[in-house]
Amino acid sequence: MAAAQMGPTQKQDTREATLARLLALLEEAAGKGAQLVVFPELAFTTFFPRWLLDGDALEIYYERGMPNSHVQPLFDRARELSVGFYIGYAELTPEGERFNAAVTVGPDGTILGKYRKVHLPGSVEPKPGQTYQQLEKRYFEYGDLGFPAFEGAESWNTPRMGMLICNDRRWPEAWRAYGLQGVELMVMGYNSAAYDPNGGATEDAGLRTFHSSLVAQGNAYMNATWAVSVAKAGDEDGSGLIGGSCIIDPDGRIVAQTESLDDEIVVAECDLDACLQGKTKMFNFAAHRRPEHYRRLIDQVGVE
Amino acid sequence: MAAAQMGPTQKQDTREATLARLLALLEEAAGKGAQLVVFPELAFTTFFPRWLLDGDALEIYYERGMPNSHVQPLFDRARELSVGFYIGYAELTPEGERFNAAVTVGPDGTILGKYRKVHLPGSVEPKPGQTYQQLEKRYFEYGDLGFPAFEGAESWNTPRMGMLICNDRRWPEAWRAYGLQGVELMVMGYNSAAYDPNGGATEDAGLRTFHSSLVAQGNAYMNATWAVSVAKAGDEDGSGLIGGSCIIDPDGRIVAQTESLDDEIVVAECDLDACLQGKTKMFNFAAHRRPEHYRRLIDQVGVE
Repeated sequence: MAAAQMGPTQKQDTREATLARLLALLEEAAGKGAQLVVFPELAFTTFFPRWLLDGDALEIYYERGMPNSHVQPLFDRARELSVGFYIGYAELTPEGERFNAAVTVGPDGTILGKYRKVHLPGSVEPKPGQTYQQLEKRYFEYGDLGFPAFEGAESWNTPRMGMLICNDRRWPEAWRAYGLQGVELMVMGYNSAAYDPNGGATEDAGLRTFHSSLVAQGNAYMNATWAVSVAKAGDEDGSGLIGGSCIIDPDGRIVAQTESLDDEIVVAECDLDACLQGKTKMFNFAAHRRPEHYRRLIDQVGVE
Repeated sequence: MAAAQMGPTQKQDTREATLARLLALLEEAAGKGAQLVVFPELAFTTFFPRWLLDGDALEIYYERGMPNSHVQPLFDRARELSVGFYIGYAELTPEGERFNAAVTVGPDGTILGKYRKVHLPGSVEPKPGQTYQQLEKRYFEYGDLGFPAFEGAESWNTPRMGMLICNDRRWPEAWRAYGLQGVELMVMGYNSAAYDPNGGATEDAGLRTFHSSLVAQGNAYMNATWAVSVAKAGDEDGSGLIGGSCIIDPDGRIVAQTESLDDEIVVAECDLDACLQGKTKMFNFAAHRRPEHYRRLIDQVGVE
């Protein structure tokens, strides 16, 4: 497996330039033996929810099909290399619905799984007086597919897989919904702020990168699954994004992690049998879970 | 707050000797300024579920009231010092029910909260041919109190509190049930194997200690709460227990951790305001949770 971290993608970067970077990452990962390459959330563009936009200035960021003519070269080259990939993008459906979405594509080019981000951060209305916004709740609808596990490719040893996008990875309910479907490999991309670009909050990039690793490690362990968690990183249009893309084993240990804030590949072999110890003992859900005491998790939204 | 780790308590140790150790730990913690002292699970005895027992050999391990004459000196001294504590014990109710239980006692000696372990590990029937068993499911009933948050003492700044016991800390559902009640301070004790005493599993003490810290760190962060997680540690009746007792901040960082496998106090100041950033932003549950997609967590017990 490969984590294919991307450095920043600026607003003025052309689609062609970004696609060339994705292709270069794909080639490098394949050259290192990876059969599945995990790209970030919203991998084709800058993280546009940081601005209040409308009309054409907004519409250019959405994909009207997956694949489509703009991204077809990535699908084509992956199939030639017999490599699959996960990639995040902004989806506009024929019915006009908008989602923060991801697909996992098999080595033969077929779409094996599709996911729409459930845990949208940010707000619908812009916050007055702030240079940078977080308007995911404005530009996307809440994902309507739930947390659908799916089978990975045979050449990956047919892992039971699940996808998350960015903020989803901080929500143990999302991981557990997949854990209850027996996932062995979780893949996810993110664009996470390295600092408050408006100068408010006090968490620095080191703490935020720690948080990003911690949630992947803790939830991978508690669900006895591999996890690949991948950043778009660096200074993007004046707003900093953390790196720290990582591959996590079912014991919650980081087995590979990026060191830069640029385009960077790290790879690791993921032995699916390493999930067995956790799934059959400590986290044998059938033997040890007590759902009669978990009602509050669905009966309440917020704190009561 | 203090984590009052205990070294091992052997089967042949007298009740009086163990009580003297608890009192010494209480004095030391109070001397270091702690106003709440967290003791381990089953703090008055050895971890007896490792053996197949019955009759008097089993009955001696249960407390028939809390407090009772055996433990009254601990309650008395704590009140004199105006220090509160969490302590785990085996409970036998007047109706004959048995629970792996814990109480949190205020500085005035009143019981502020009571908890009965929900996530019992192990089995009902002994495993044939094994020297050491894990028979919690035989000796205890599943906790019937759910996850009841409660108010800590005024001298602790009246934190919203929750209790867990040992294996509970590995289950994100338990933490979230408390998180949804706004907890700011989670306290828990454990007796966790350092290795498989029967020579089976391959996880060593280092990995198991890492797991113990990881679940406390990850779940503390994801619920924006302080956590104090405390071991009974060391070589107990020929079976090894991990140490690694720790105090965790709402960012998931370890702010104090024991270094030994013996009786040992570590203390930290726990500023409850440090929970606010998480509770109002990243983990503002009312704004960001999507329970309509969490049904699987209560509709299923095991993997489907």
